[in-house]
Amino acid sequence: MADRRPARIAALRDSLIAAHIDGLVITSLPNVRYLTGFSGSSALVLVTQRDLYFITDFRYDTQVGEEVGDLATIRIEQQSLWTGLWNLAGSLSGLEVVGFESSHLLHRDFQRLLTDGTRWQWRPQVNLVEALREKKDADEVALIRKAGEMAISALKKTLGEVRPGLTELNVAGILEKALRDQGSEDFPFATIVASGPRAALPHARASTRVIEHGDLLLVDFGAQYKGYCSDITRTVVIGPASEEQRAVYDIVQQANAMASKSVRAGMKGQDADGLARRYIEDRGYGDAFGHSLGHGLGLEVHEAPRLAKSVETLLGEGSVVTIEPGIYRPGWGGVRIEDDVHLAPGGPEILTDFTRELLEVA
Amino acid sequence: MADRRPARIAALRDSLIAAHIDGLVITSLPNVRYLTGFSGSSALVLVTQRDLYFITDFRYDTQVGEEVGDLATIRIEQQSLWTGLWNLAGSLSGLEVVGFESSHLLHRDFQRLLTDGTRWQWRPQVNLVEALREKKDADEVALIRKAGEMAISALKKTLGEVRPGLTELNVAGILEKALRDQGSEDFPFATIVASGPRAALPHARASTRVIEHGDLLLVDFGAQYKGYCSDITRTVVIGPASEEQRAVYDIVQQANAMASKSVRAGMKGQDADGLARRYIEDRGYGDAFGHSLGHGLGLEVHEAPRLAKSVETLLGEGSVVTIEPGIYRPGWGGVRIEDDVHLAPGGPEILTDFTRELLEVA
Repeated sequence: MADRRPARIAALRDSLIAAHIDGLVITSLPNVRYLTGFSGSSALVLVTQRDLYFITDFRYDTQVGEEVGDLATIRIEQQSLWTGLWNLAGSLSGLEVVGFESSHLLHRDFQRLLTDGTRWQWRPQVNLVEALREKKDADEVALIRKAGEMAISALKKTLGEVRPGLTELNVAGILEKALRDQGSEDFPFATIVASGPRAALPHARASTRVIEHGDLLLVDFGAQYKGYCSDITRTVVIGPASEEQRAVYDIVQQANAMASKSVRAGMKGQDADGLARRYIEDRGYGDAFGHSLGHGLGLEVHEAPRLAKSVETLLGEGSVVTIEPGIYRPGWGGVRIEDDVHLAPGGPEILTDFTRELLEVA
Repeated sequence: MADRRPARIAALRDSLIAAHIDGLVITSLPNVRYLTGFSGSSALVLVTQRDLYFITDFRYDTQVGEEVGDLATIRIEQQSLWTGLWNLAGSLSGLEVVGFESSHLLHRDFQRLLTDGTRWQWRPQVNLVEALREKKDADEVALIRKAGEMAISALKKTLGEVRPGLTELNVAGILEKALRDQGSEDFPFATIVASGPRAALPHARASTRVIEHGDLLLVDFGAQYKGYCSDITRTVVIGPASEEQRAVYDIVQQANAMASKSVRAGMKGQDADGLARRYIEDRGYGDAFGHSLGHGLGLEVHEAPRLAKSVETLLGEGSVVTIEPGIYRPGWGGVRIEDDVHLAPGGPEILTDFTRELLEVA
């Protein structure tokens, strides 16, 4: 793979000029990873037009050398990362107005800027790095596709082992073990395994509920590979589906297919959401689709853009988004079908290639 | 179990008086859970001397009723939680000075207070709820002990299956599946499985490294039960231990035992740290023990108090802390042995009862 980091840093430097700031302090770890390749959990980065400074602690001494290398001036701090920044500030000239990431700085740390960072004038910034991250390059799309393949392999194995009598937690365990065996380096979010009436809860996690014959079983989870996440949902029936289950499923399946086929870069977030929502509304289930259609994903499992009723922003070319319509009926259950879709110049490319037909398992 | 929430809220109200604030807006989800029992991921709580207001979104309509019930005035917000707070603010009288959690509020949200929350004067607060959480009651200690038992059962099963040829990720998968089968509702932190030279990295996660005969294998992980976390580390050898492995192990084992036996409420955090550190230093490995001895745990896997060189605060009675000395030698490997210890009035009670003798497995 080509080293994309210098181009990313150059693009960020253009954003600094547009924002009228001489430098930017980066505290978001996914943003740090995007710009420098560092995968650890402790870092503070200062970008200026001329320099890139990377501050971390002793635990990452070896790792920062391997991952960041010559890209930045690296400082290992014994005390706190902030102390490292103030020490650095004393040695830098020509820096007056410095930005910080308003969405990634706690108020407590903001107070440090005001008390210890008096050498600079501070300007809150939002989305400077996130805006760059929205457009994925070919390497990033390949990593998300790979994370999607890991998730699908794990799901196939799991569906082969699901049976009545297992708890939702047992199923989560089978799935997560299969993800690890596939090489998933982490779980991007807490695995959702929701069966029977619990499938009506859009944010159910796995519980001790015992899965029964006739249940809907909704599984929503992801894999992570070299930092990049996948996020996929399938809903199956334990045993033969009832007519009602099949009827609801078909609506969600159609809504998923229509949105995945028609979503385009350049569309408003709310229009993308409408692709699936209108279809579901027209069939009388509008109130039962209580969340938005999808979200961007990449180094984080929720990032820009958003596909939701209220969003007038345009979807950026090259972004990767989830398409996840659902219908939830309290007491009965729910169906959600979720794929990851790359908004390529030539149209949508689905990165999660696994059947969306209704599976009757066990 | 008795309902401890009213007493916790009463204690917080005393803290509000001491802090000269009329109310407190709580944005930390573990703090929300401690005070109200709510286990969801979207909540804003306002505590005053007279009232308790709970704001969440439509996804948690059912759940908030079940978990919070009559304890609070519940408001379901269609827009954002903050909109809910401002609507509420318009209807409340007698509130002038309101605190917010400085360590749990992003700068972006802090700006909302200044632009939309002008009805009140805002005061940053730290640790008001966290200070209450430090002292665990009998029910909380029982839950942490249960989470420890889950972790130990999972570890025993895993050590029975470890063998050369598996990757660290495979071992993580076996362990995490066993945790799920035990009923662990989540993973409190990313599982660490570090073998051979990687055991020298105190913050290694699981990797694709293949485990070899003769390796040290360090496993650091936890279970979660009804919100409460355990955190345990054991280090084993794959096959017969070398003399050098045994020598290093014995030092860590002794340091762990001395600290677990001697740690007491009322001790300074740095003196607790010294219990293990001095022993390791005296044997010439001071530089190889590069992190602090431990941290509190409960609803979060890292909470007050801290057991570290720089900490002069006293350990509170009733807190639960980790005791986790280690020796790390770059290129060679590392050993860490970690237990969870309750600082009971009568002395330390170890909650993680599993052998600390050097195990030679596979």
